[in-house]
Amino acid sequence: MNLILADSQELDESGVLTLSDARAAHLLNVLDVTPGRDVRVGLLDGPHGIGTVTSTRENTVTLRCVFEQEIPARPRVDLLLALPRPKVMRRLWAQLAALGVGQIILTNAERVERHYFDAHTLQPEHARPLLIEGLQQARDTRLPFVSIHRQFRILIEDHLDALAGDGWRLLADPSGATSIAAAIGQRHPQRLLLAVGPEGGWNDFERGLLQAHGFELAGMGPRTLRSDTACVALLAIAHSAMTSPPIS
Amino acid sequence: MNLILADSQELDESGVLTLSDARAAHLLNVLDVTPGRDVRVGLLDGPHGIGTVTSTRENTVTLRCVFEQEIPARPRVDLLLALPRPKVMRRLWAQLAALGVGQIILTNAERVERHYFDAHTLQPEHARPLLIEGLQQARDTRLPFVSIHRQFRILIEDHLDALAGDGWRLLADPSGATSIAAAIGQRHPQRLLLAVGPEGGWNDFERGLLQAHGFELAGMGPRTLRSDTACVALLAIAHSAMTSPPIS
Repeated sequence: MNLILADSQELDESGVLTLSDARAAHLLNVLDVTPGRDVRVGLLDGPHGIGTVTSTRENTVTLRCVFEQEIPARPRVDLLLALPRPKVMRRLWAQLAALGVGQIILTNAERVERHYFDAHTLQPEHARPLLIEGLQQARDTRLPFVSIHRQFRILIEDHLDALAGDGWRLLADPSGATSIAAAIGQRHPQRLLLAVGPEGGWNDFERGLLQAHGFELAGMGPRTLRSDTACVALLAIAHSAMTSPPIS
Repeated sequence: MNLILADSQELDESGVLTLSDARAAHLLNVLDVTPGRDVRVGLLDGPHGIGTVTSTRENTVTLRCVFEQEIPARPRVDLLLALPRPKVMRRLWAQLAALGVGQIILTNAERVERHYFDAHTLQPEHARPLLIEGLQQARDTRLPFVSIHRQFRILIEDHLDALAGDGWRLLADPSGATSIAAAIGQRHPQRLLLAVGPEGGWNDFERGLLQAHGFELAGMGPRTLRSDTACVALLAIAHSAMTSPPIS
């Protein structure tokens, strides 16, 4: 926990934050805070700031918080992800939030099993704390926007432009000739929407529909990765390439 | 399982491979093979090849194998990794082998707890099947060489040159100014030895000793990642940069 994230509703009118949950336990047991100590704080979807510990009791920590004016920009990469199996999705929430995604668009595909959509981990009350865990790890305040779509075609044809209209679209696929890093380096987009398929890949119809809706193919190299490893690897490469100077 | 990997000792003198373990189950239940079907096979630390199914019985599959002449090169990235906690290490084995590492050098550090070294997952009989699982996923035959070092200073001062003398040395650290991708792009090394610290980072002595032994600092971007996510992200970026054309 490299940042204590709070919801703005948790602050009282004078900017005092009183914690008695896992965040308090972290402050008391890991950081070993005492009154007067400053720690990094952040408001969910709001600014970073500094919290000064004003009191500590058994399981409770009180912080007086001062926040910056500026709210951090949301990460410049959005993810269109064929829903992985529940165990994998559960592990991915915090990792995705830590790596940085503006939004996570979860979709059906032929190689996604229907029962994945019934998974407990897709419930906001399960996913949200894991996303916040990732943000606290990476010192970000911007909660990824999550949407779940059971109908691939309707998502791509009818909803995707409204959800993520402003991003350049890249489809990570073994058939792509140019690498992700090279494709991004040549185009140098302001925002990126990255599509990552299911275990076993998109089928031909799905790949064709994505390409018909503006997704360009980019290769993933010669090694076939498990979808969770691929997701982390591709997001890391995408962020690295987005922040590199343009290739002239 | 995108490749059936076998040890050369499992082949009889005429190149016939008889399987009755998880590989046979995969062939029978996932690939649904029948006699005459060709599947990708590989020899551990040896060549790729094609196996033609010659018979299937209840839980047993027999394949006649023909191998290529050439043995794939081992991955060009080696990893010096501060030993993560056992649960994380257990998850990393297959991911590291899938992403591709020539060798995995596990080391102690101040922020590594001593009992991590007693973990069951460090036993070869536990680690090896997980590494092979990753190779079978990524269609590689080259088993990463693994060594475990309880004394950081002795490793760096006395053993590292013999273990990994030929790689350019890069230390992923929040204090690095140049990004990993940019550093690799400028240098374009043939082999890379990438050092990844423990949760909480290397201490000043450790960082200094690594720099004194040729490691150059490279940054990890503004986001602090959990060590397992960092490991996957950094290896992905390193491989991507190693395979990009040199920056002139």
